[in-house]
Amino acid sequence: MAVGLSEPDEILPVAGIKLASVAAGIKKNGGNDLVVFVVDKSELSTGVDDSWAMQAQSPACAATFTQNAFCAAPITLAKKHLSLFSPELPVRALLINSGNANAGTGEKGKQNALQSCAWLAEKLQCSTEQILPFSTGVIGEQLPMPVLQSGIDKVVSNLCEDNWLSAAKGIMTTDTIAKAVSKVIKIDNRAITISGIAKGSGMICPNMATMLSFITTDANIEASFLQQCLVDAVDISFNSITVDGDTSTNDACVLIATAKANNIQLNKASAEAKIFIDALNDVCQHLAQAIVRDAEGATKFVTVAVSQAQSKAEAKNVAYTVAHSPLVKTALFASDPNWGRIIAAMGYSGANFDPAKVSIYFQGAPGYVCVMQNGEPHHFDQGSAEAILKQKDVFITINIDGGEYSATAWGCDLSYDYIKINADYHT
Amino acid sequence: MAVGLSEPDEILPVAGIKLASVAAGIKKNGGNDLVVFVVDKSELSTGVDDSWAMQAQSPACAATFTQNAFCAAPITLAKKHLSLFSPELPVRALLINSGNANAGTGEKGKQNALQSCAWLAEKLQCSTEQILPFSTGVIGEQLPMPVLQSGIDKVVSNLCEDNWLSAAKGIMTTDTIAKAVSKVIKIDNRAITISGIAKGSGMICPNMATMLSFITTDANIEASFLQQCLVDAVDISFNSITVDGDTSTNDACVLIATAKANNIQLNKASAEAKIFIDALNDVCQHLAQAIVRDAEGATKFVTVAVSQAQSKAEAKNVAYTVAHSPLVKTALFASDPNWGRIIAAMGYSGANFDPAKVSIYFQGAPGYVCVMQNGEPHHFDQGSAEAILKQKDVFITINIDGGEYSATAWGCDLSYDYIKINADYHT
Repeated sequence: MAVGLSEPDEILPVAGIKLASVAAGIKKNGGNDLVVFVVDKSELSTGVDDSWAMQAQSPACAATFTQNAFCAAPITLAKKHLSLFSPELPVRALLINSGNANAGTGEKGKQNALQSCAWLAEKLQCSTEQILPFSTGVIGEQLPMPVLQSGIDKVVSNLCEDNWLSAAKGIMTTDTIAKAVSKVIKIDNRAITISGIAKGSGMICPNMATMLSFITTDANIEASFLQQCLVDAVDISFNSITVDGDTSTNDACVLIATAKANNIQLNKASAEAKIFIDALNDVCQHLAQAIVRDAEGATKFVTVAVSQAQSKAEAKNVAYTVAHSPLVKTALFASDPNWGRIIAAMGYSGANFDPAKVSIYFQGAPGYVCVMQNGEPHHFDQGSAEAILKQKDVFITINIDGGEYSATAWGCDLSYDYIKINADYHT
Repeated sequence: MAVGLSEPDEILPVAGIKLASVAAGIKKNGGNDLVVFVVDKSELSTGVDDSWAMQAQSPACAATFTQNAFCAAPITLAKKHLSLFSPELPVRALLINSGNANAGTGEKGKQNALQSCAWLAEKLQCSTEQILPFSTGVIGEQLPMPVLQSGIDKVVSNLCEDNWLSAAKGIMTTDTIAKAVSKVIKIDNRAITISGIAKGSGMICPNMATMLSFITTDANIEASFLQQCLVDAVDISFNSITVDGDTSTNDACVLIATAKANNIQLNKASAEAKIFIDALNDVCQHLAQAIVRDAEGATKFVTVAVSQAQSKAEAKNVAYTVAHSPLVKTALFASDPNWGRIIAAMGYSGANFDPAKVSIYFQGAPGYVCVMQNGEPHHFDQGSAEAILKQKDVFITINIDGGEYSATAWGCDLSYDYIKINADYHT
């Protein structure tokens, strides 16, 4: 049961993006398991005829990938294809399957990833290099290629602009609920839409752990700026969450900007750049938090906010280490205000701070309690603390009093069901 | 239930060490909670009258401490006292309480740690600086000082050479079984005894996580060599085990050499140095493995051996990351040969290796199966693999084929009972 998370609201179509999702037969449970995003072919927009404008109108694609050394065959191929993109060879499609990760599959796995892209490229009449492949699911089994091929035939005949919720369901593995969000902003006096989906519910940790997210916008954005916006957004969203600290072989976050909104191209110098940055951050944080809320076995959603650190990295390190501690997580599951486990986790984070200046608070719907003030234990009412920790949304606020930097990490508790789900999930 | 671990055999007395353990009333369950090790006063040995020999006969003390920035008051004080030791001011006693960690206790905690040492020093007629204090238990509560004072009065009247098992029990917290071991070696034609005890069953991770270990020997050893032997031994024992990755505020490993065996002083140049090093490594590994076997909720003891790495650090990193992964641990709990989780953990370890050269094996009493060979998935019989993983002692062997270094890490599985124990343990 996802913690405080309901089915996504209406997801807005994004001009220039068509998508579809089918049950190809890869997943054992018969659910949707093959999703395709297709980007409309680049065209000259009406009334614009100089070559700069034509270049500006081509779609841009940004991505961040797992840091795992055993990264899966599709990840290796997607990185390679992404590096070949140009205005003349723009991204044309994302090909995503769930149910099989195509990881730990050796040479044959690489050939299968390439073959899948070739099949879709043939259908879309584009180059194989214009397809980015993604897979998620069980590691160590080869993709069922005949099933995948007929799935690709089927999925391209279902493409339309309104298939977002179905796509969100098609990329799910152990997720219990679809994760998707839309946001509309105004830039250059045009309405700009950002819509995205994500999957992930365990094996979640910074650096793109078992999660996939696909976000698109119709904004016209310079490619290197788009990449920077995505890297920064991922840092404070998908890379600030923790379920179990296991980062996976397969995961990625992709952001496509179709340029169909015809705004004057955004770049880092644009006056309105921050409007886009803020909106993208919101979208990524919404999706990242949805992953934690749907974490395997979670009964609570925990926000750890660290303030007044000497650096941003130090603030994030402390927040993340506390959110990640199995002992903090089990205490939260028990609604136990065991702040000793918080200071223990802070202490082994490796961050440089003065223990004598630390203050710690538990917050929730009923109010807050201070449990440590300037390094000294602070008397608090056990009943009030427990009432706060019994809420589904709990905040741990830590003031280090050593600088001006803040960071937030999001996590969940660790329950019996985490063990059950991960002990039962079949190889 | 500890995995394959029974009550310690007879623990041999060590010449020059007396110890005692009493129930002072710190632990809520009424168990023994106060332990004292007393080192005999230095004396000139018969027939030796030059000042070099006198100096050589004084006891030496080595120690490693938690790296936790929120380290407890007794740890801060023990480090300070250790730094003051000299042949004129040698270690005189270890004062250890269980049931209260004296951590997160601010200024008052520091005063209490110092006061405890002063009380014991008065009883032993030595300087306060000659006492090293240690505490383990609940964080964030002040020590019950009157109870501690009368406990100290009581414990010093019970000192004798044969109280090892009672001392091992007196330092236990969530441990289900006492951990102790003895070893006898021959150096300089004299019998040298090493006896040690340890505690710890959760919150265990490298860098001295919630564990205490006190080891003594009657060998005559040069102090700086003794310290180096201990650091090296801890690296391949207590710092190569993982239960949950949480390192604590309180923990320490102390090694006292009384010099009572009257051997020619051992130093790093001694021909027989390696005999002592090997024996100390054995003692530390025995105690470290006992901690893992008694890990909270563990049903299996897991050895991860990595070979042919480019460096020792890399080998240890891979072994440790695999042993530490919650997803590997839950798969082991389920006796599921889910090797995908092993390669995922290897991949996020940050170690530098070629995935195409990796081979992985599961081993246990019924034999072994190869699940990956040279980076390719290797067909194996599911039933055979499950039979191996159903054993209480499981080996994961990983060959990286990139160098000549090896390392081993020890861990356990992650079960429902880990959650239960850690959610129930009172703040």
